Amino acid sequence: MSIKVGIVGATGYTGGELVRFLLHHPEAEIVHLMRLTSEAELTLEQVHPHLHRLSQLKCIPMNEEALARDVDVVFLAVPHGAAMNIAPRLLEAGVRVIDLSADFRLKDAREFEVWYHTKHGATHLLKEAVYGLPEVHREEIRDARLIANPGCYPISAIIALMPLLKMKIARSKHILIDSKSGISGAGRTKLSIDYHYPEMFGDFKPYGIASHRHTPEIEQELSLIAGEKISVTFTPHLLPVSRGILTTAYVQLENKISPAELYEAYVQAYSNEPFVRVLPMGVAPRLKSVIGSNFCDVNIFVDERTNCAIAISVIDNLAKGAASNAIQNMNIMFGLDECCGLLLPAISP
Amino acid sequence: MSIKVGIVGATGYTGGELVRFLLHHPEAEIVHLMRLTSEAELTLEQVHPHLHRLSQLKCIPMNEEALARDVDVVFLAVPHGAAMNIAPRLLEAGVRVIDLSADFRLKDAREFEVWYHTKHGATHLLKEAVYGLPEVHREEIRDARLIANPGCYPISAIIALMPLLKMKIARSKHILIDSKSGISGAGRTKLSIDYHYPEMFGDFKPYGIASHRHTPEIEQELSLIAGEKISVTFTPHLLPVSRGILTTAYVQLENKISPAELYEAYVQAYSNEPFVRVLPMGVAPRLKSVIGSNFCDVNIFVDERTNCAIAISVIDNLAKGAASNAIQNMNIMFGLDECCGLLLPAISP
Amino acid sequence: MSIKVGIVGATGYTGGELVRFLLHHPEAEIVHLMRLTSEAELTLEQVHPHLHRLSQLKCIPMNEEALARDVDVVFLAVPHGAAMNIAPRLLEAGVRVIDLSADFRLKDAREFEVWYHTKHGATHLLKEAVYGLPEVHREEIRDARLIANPGCYPISAIIALMPLLKMKIARSKHILIDSKSGISGAGRTKLSIDYHYPEMFGDFKPYGIASHRHTPEIEQELSLIAGEKISVTFTPHLLPVSRGILTTAYVQLENKISPAELYEAYVQAYSNEPFVRVLPMGVAPRLKSVIGSNFCDVNIFVDERTNCAIAISVIDNLAKGAASNAIQNMNIMFGLDECCGLLLPAISP
Amino acid sequence: MSIKVGIVGATGYTGGELVRFLLHHPEAEIVHLMRLTSEAELTLEQVHPHLHRLSQLKCIPMNEEALARDVDVVFLAVPHGAAMNIAPRLLEAGVRVIDLSADFRLKDAREFEVWYHTKHGATHLLKEAVYGLPEVHREEIRDARLIANPGCYPISAIIALMPLLKMKIARSKHILIDSKSGISGAGRTKLSIDYHYPEMFGDFKPYGIASHRHTPEIEQELSLIAGEKISVTFTPHLLPVSRGILTTAYVQLENKISPAELYEAYVQAYSNEPFVRVLPMGVAPRLKSVIGSNFCDVNIFVDERTNCAIAISVIDNLAKGAASNAIQNMNIMFGLDECCGLLLPAISP
Repeated sequence: MSIKVGIVGATGYTGGELVRFLLHHPEAEIVHLMRLTSEAELTLEQVHPHLHRLSQLKCIPMNEEALARDVDVVFLAVPHGAAMNIAPRLLEAGVRVIDLSADFRLKDAREFEVWYHTKHGATHLLKEAVYGLPEVHREEIRDARLIANPGCYPISAIIALMPLLKMKIARSKHILIDSKSGISGAGRTKLSIDYHYPEMFGDFKPYGIASHRHTPEIEQELSLIAGEKISVTFTPHLLPVSRGILTTAYVQLENKISPAELYEAYVQAYSNEPFVRVLPMGVAPRLKSVIGSNFCDVNIFVDERTNCAIAISVIDNLAKGAASNAIQNMNIMFGLDECCGLLLPAISP
Repeated sequence: MSIKVGIVGATGYTGGELVRFLLHHPEAEIVHLMRLTSEAELTLEQVHPHLHRLSQLKCIPMNEEALARDVDVVFLAVPHGAAMNIAPRLLEAGVRVIDLSADFRLKDAREFEVWYHTKHGATHLLKEAVYGLPEVHREEIRDARLIANPGCYPISAIIALMPLLKMKIARSKHILIDSKSGISGAGRTKLSIDYHYPEMFGDFKPYGIASHRHTPEIEQELSLIAGEKISVTFTPHLLPVSRGILTTAYVQLENKISPAELYEAYVQAYSNEPFVRVLPMGVAPRLKSVIGSNFCDVNIFVDERTNCAIAISVIDNLAKGAASNAIQNMNIMFGLDECCGLLLPAISP
Repeated sequence: MSIKVGIVGATGYTGGELVRFLLHHPEAEIVHLMRLTSEAELTLEQVHPHLHRLSQLKCIPMNEEALARDVDVVFLAVPHGAAMNIAPRLLEAGVRVIDLSADFRLKDAREFEVWYHTKHGATHLLKEAVYGLPEVHREEIRDARLIANPGCYPISAIIALMPLLKMKIARSKHILIDSKSGISGAGRTKLSIDYHYPEMFGDFKPYGIASHRHTPEIEQELSLIAGEKISVTFTPHLLPVSRGILTTAYVQLENKISPAELYEAYVQAYSNEPFVRVLPMGVAPRLKSVIGSNFCDVNIFVDERTNCAIAISVIDNLAKGAASNAIQNMNIMFGLDECCGLLLPAISP
Repeated sequence: MSIKVGIVGATGYTGGELVRFLLHHPEAEIVHLMRLTSEAELTLEQVHPHLHRLSQLKCIPMNEEALARDVDVVFLAVPHGAAMNIAPRLLEAGVRVIDLSADFRLKDAREFEVWYHTKHGATHLLKEAVYGLPEVHREEIRDARLIANPGCYPISAIIALMPLLKMKIARSKHILIDSKSGISGAGRTKLSIDYHYPEMFGDFKPYGIASHRHTPEIEQELSLIAGEKISVTFTPHLLPVSRGILTTAYVQLENKISPAELYEAYVQAYSNEPFVRVLPMGVAPRLKSVIGSNFCDVNIFVDERTNCAIAISVIDNLAKGAASNAIQNMNIMFGLDECCGLLLPAISP
């Protein structure tokens, strides 16, 4: 079996990671690399010099007809607002779609419009779209035609908090999430003085305080998991590195629980998850252990003095936070071993 | 007037910063540079190559007699456990002492022994010692013989939170403090695989989760400010930079308060503080704006959806977080203009 | 005495450094901060947040009349091509000009036009303009009306090589110069994917190979020093840091010379230079020792197996490589102590 | 077919990279992971947390008997001086040895003793040992029992210069090699203030000037390639990154040669090399394009003004500079496709 794959938005960082993983995938074949913004045809090494010599693929201008004709599944690595226009036609043509933009993540179109300041053009698909986090929605992913691949921050926050929320031991329905991300999360094309090398070198800063667009997405999924309305205060920060997200989440606990008991619940919760590694008790996750890989390292701590749980997770924002998680979805959708092509190890040091 | 100064522990990072600032101080003169751990005499440029040619000072082995004889004030930039032995004799000899270690910060000797696993050898001085944060204890500093210069994390946390706590608008007595520090905070001599360059390059990680020794110090001072017992959950993280601390602190608010009103309170609270810069409303502090300087940049935000205040501060852990704050104490103790010698600007980019 | 100073191009990195140093200068007063590209008036902290609270200066649109009326000297921190238009009118109005752009560095207008692809609009001033490297042209600087402040790479290369070339011991008239620079050298406003943080993080690369515009400037000055035509192969590289240039220059020697003898010649040559520090024999210069300062650290080595001299220098490209060197010129021009306001120490670690 | 592999020195950075690549190798199986320095048994994730869950292997104390009994080939990732003791016994037992230390690289035992200050204990094997750079010695590698895997700097220098030296167009027999390396080259266990994070952050410096131990190795191989005695002046520098070497080599040319002609010679020379990528004409190699991979990117430039060729190469010092090059040797020795298991792409950004 060989799944025919198309990638739209192949020139960005996420596009590059999709190619890097799929070139190693024994059951998938990239048939088309496309980009939205230009008419020029480029070789793969012009677009991604580090992938030089690993494939003869060309990156061509967007061509929906070719996708409809030639591929089984399309990855949309495009800005929000674009996918809602492309996805409906591809679905009609019988192509399955894994959208890495924000367009289909929020179930409530009004919520989308409030946070993204954009009218939603494909609200009829919101119900059908499956939020593509395998650790939460594996069963629905199997039969999905349209996957909304989650945001990078939500992935790190949800995996950090899910076992705890399922235990129903939180005292408050309000959770504090303090996240720190490498700058590749800002993408490749949006040049800004904020991401100019001399500015961020040696720097660190929060941004989007109390206003980041991933907030409603985190709340939607945590509420689903908890079975009640959860609100979050979410503060993202920019780390002076290229890749990686570390999330530190704080939950006030209702009653005393021993750290060992809570830890054991995490071990159990993720015992069958191929890409979630609960570290040994007391070992803090670190960014470097997951960079380049589809793994999410997680651990749970309790401040016994204040009865506050501290959940910590790390992912590579471009891999488990985007590209390789999308491929994990593809594997599930097409009935493959979920790990197929995804066991590329992290690079360290 | 010229204050005669001695520095013990001149070879560490904090020692180097004390020299850097004091060489620019018009009213102070470094008379002795000493170190505890060796008998060898070193030139300043052997110890701190970047200070080459700025002074002919030598760094000599510890010599209490010379200090007692020649100086007005001694800065102790030594590991905890050492200052409690040195300070009493210097005080007896009539020398004022500014201790940059942890030995005299906690008023409760048992608390010290619990967190530092060290018996306190000078408990009789704990009451007299003044916690040397000018923004909180300026009046007591004036007449102090013995200053306990605060820890770097506590300085950033206390300045971030003080105006809010004074307003008595917090709903909970439990505060979450998520701090991120450059690695110079680990000092110069404690080599460890944790601080080996290839390990931390591109990395980021929490450490000392629910167990860092600065926790009781933060609680002691915040409780004093709030007028009631405050507990904190404090999570420090290691940033892959040399210098700087950014603290993000979260306080659940009792009642609705407009962001503008809370912001205005911060502006008022710090309007006379020469080294606390409340940034324009909505502007997030960033590390680079204070590196090398005695400034603390601070701002306050409100997540109106969740009624949670987010207080953010940045300092240079070696400057306002240690050396230059200690000199600010000296200026106050000796009746000088508090800014004297301390207006060295940050270096950016 | 107080020299009245104007700065044009105050919003760039070099402009910021001019302000940082001049605010500490006891004999100079910044009267005007201007920029070429906009009509808006900005506060200093809007332009340079790290200088917040150190001055009440505003940055206003370019106003030649005000400069002519109010200041003794103008620093032009503008792109090449702009200074040649501004300088003549200021000189006519009796204002002295220190130009930090490339416009007046090359004595041969044709050379300028070949390397800069720009017609020179003020060739009549090329003869009068003094190449503002105090270590080479101190006497001419004293009486200069117009200073061409050198390029950052040339400063590092010339100081590294001058004593050796004066000794006339080089076998070849062709010298290899391999330089490595932080990215602030690319300026603040020229956003490019090349300087996008995720691209340069962890990266290192040469650029402008055999074609960089500083080449003819280096050759002009080295030829002058050597008393014969010197050619150079110059290869600049981009370091993943904000500031600093390290130059490694290679000179094949005519006859055997002992490393100690050559080292001694360097010590002698720079014994009276306040800002050139010849390090102890055998100690390699490092970037961190000069960042933020006007110092140039230099050392000379001999590969005795191959009879090749290796001259190494480090400077801060924004300080001794631009802003503070320009102020050193000002000090000389106005008869001040050459070190006045320039002894700000480097920041390390 | 499955080659049984043993790794000695599995806890270092190079050991970790051997495991990372071999876990992806379809024709090799790691049978033993050993280390020299301890009696304790460790799990793979204790040693290399980023490889957590990718294998159940344990790292055990050195056990020559087990190696002799169980494996076809041993990789020695040990300090110099250790391999010369281990290799002879393994060879006698019929095990092939790929030594990543310096012990068997220099053909002349006296040269080894001069540069390494160590008596050579296995001189009888120096003649038999094959210098394991496939691009130079592929044929001899096929039948080798003992491979001396090259040093990281020599690999980058030799690949950069080989085509040019074979053309016999160099005017001088003296070549300048200016190399810049990430700090992982210093290994994982040799803690030093030189590699302490705050020291190297933002720093850059040369070291081992005119005295680095890779010098005679480079000269040995370049002389062999050129067919005449070549001497080099080699200057390594430390880059503030974890991985990667960029080498800039300068060769004065005898006669004029057009850049296009020289470039074409490089393209031809490496047209059949699977892991040497000659970049498009005029495109400078950059570190990030090879990090994590076995590729060496190379390009050649001519400074036509000075008739000087500039050869530039980049490798990952831990991959093509050590571990993956060693596996490339193994593939050749065992008659496999040379690329087998080695097409892991670089990670960028």
